[in-house]
Amino acid sequence: MRVEHQAGRTLKLTVSYDGTRLVGWQRQAEGDSVQALLEHALARFEGAPVVVHGAGRTDAGVHALGQVASAHVTFDHDTDTLMRALNAQLPSDVRVLRVEEAGPGFHARFDARSKTYRYLIRNAPFVSPFERAFVWHVPQPLDHAAMQSAAGLLEGTHDFAAFQSLGSDTAGSVRTISASGIRRHVPPLGNPLHPSRDGDADLLAYEVSGDGFLRHMVRTIVGTLVEVGRGWREPASIAAILRTRRRDHAGPTAPPQGLFLVCVDYD
Amino acid sequence: MRVEHQAGRTLKLTVSYDGTRLVGWQRQAEGDSVQALLEHALARFEGAPVVVHGAGRTDAGVHALGQVASAHVTFDHDTDTLMRALNAQLPSDVRVLRVEEAGPGFHARFDARSKTYRYLIRNAPFVSPFERAFVWHVPQPLDHAAMQSAAGLLEGTHDFAAFQSLGSDTAGSVRTISASGIRRHVPPLGNPLHPSRDGDADLLAYEVSGDGFLRHMVRTIVGTLVEVGRGWREPASIAAILRTRRRDHAGPTAPPQGLFLVCVDYD
Repeated sequence: MRVEHQAGRTLKLTVSYDGTRLVGWQRQAEGDSVQALLEHALARFEGAPVVVHGAGRTDAGVHALGQVASAHVTFDHDTDTLMRALNAQLPSDVRVLRVEEAGPGFHARFDARSKTYRYLIRNAPFVSPFERAFVWHVPQPLDHAAMQSAAGLLEGTHDFAAFQSLGSDTAGSVRTISASGIRRHVPPLGNPLHPSRDGDADLLAYEVSGDGFLRHMVRTIVGTLVEVGRGWREPASIAAILRTRRRDHAGPTAPPQGLFLVCVDYD
Repeated sequence: MRVEHQAGRTLKLTVSYDGTRLVGWQRQAEGDSVQALLEHALARFEGAPVVVHGAGRTDAGVHALGQVASAHVTFDHDTDTLMRALNAQLPSDVRVLRVEEAGPGFHARFDARSKTYRYLIRNAPFVSPFERAFVWHVPQPLDHAAMQSAAGLLEGTHDFAAFQSLGSDTAGSVRTISASGIRRHVPPLGNPLHPSRDGDADLLAYEVSGDGFLRHMVRTIVGTLVEVGRGWREPASIAAILRTRRRDHAGPTAPPQGLFLVCVDYD
């Protein structure tokens, strides 16, 4: 007997969230995860459980500007109606920015070619009330040039085992980083007090793009770069840390609230 | 017997706060007010109660970029040390941006020459998770030109009784508004997804400066301007509303989270 072609369609959702009160992307026993919120919202249309796959499994407290998710469904609402209805159901800290038809079999994680993360550091005596949930506050002076020099050494294909949290279950720790650098003039974020058109010199952004990221990898890179910026490590030590493949040779894991999943690229 | 000259000094504090969880500027029986938070923090230096006066009594949920407060104290810590120590004690939603020595007898409210408020409206199908606490979401189309035309009619010296909440206890309702207008290209606020250098066309800002404001006056003006923007009122009706002096002739009170006390000017 011939197996019937699977009915339905695959949706691609672009999602933004303020991670402050969320338990992260992935479904947990307790608390609101983005995955479960989307699955529940879609299940109301489907009349049956729906599984949603995300491109990046962001941790509790981490934000997303453009997370991408995929879901196979059989209902036939048009994408505009669906987007409005999903946003009407979701809590205000999660918003669906786009709903698109994807090719059959599209999978947000397996098909992703590249992901870009941004990490914001407020390098000033104090943090504005309006950005406290979106930056890591580092009041001590930071040598931005040394941080930039260290950040560049991460570009290329490396074994990132030293920048992976202990207990990771990923098979293999070799990843390719296509861009890794510090930007100073990012647009102001949540800080209406300093509405400079050229951004804001005390706000450092670390931006990194690559084909994949290990658990806590961006936050461990940032924790290490801040130690470089404070003069505790030489920029060149980054290469040595990579070679050791030992997590205890890298710096601390930076706190989650400075991290944003910016976008996910597909072929 | 000659009364001794009062010992001590008067401080001028510039304060920013995210009003989301606060009960407003003014001390209340329950909940955190900015006034009580500052008074408690200063009392630890003074070793005795301190009274703090604010320029504008912002309501619960209203934010400040540059509220100004005054306090008479006798301790002699320098202003830089004091600013750091106050920020170390205050919760992260309240920050002291500046501490200055003021002339004897300086009073933040009585000496204020002008105050400027900004009200943000997100005029788009949905609101980013990152700005949901800082805008009023109006998804319906708004006629910006009509709103601008109506806003301009409020400039000058008028009796604003129609734009004052019932139950106000202020003596007199005549105020002078030096500037009242809609701006479209304000810098992005809390919305890293749309980091346009020229601001963001869907974000409307109503900005108003004047010598004083009645209770809920800015929010009632905004509620009325949005009715003009939706085509429910003619711009010219603003003049008629002023003449009636009746609150029920103006529009609804806009929600608090879109409102910011931007700055207070002194001679």
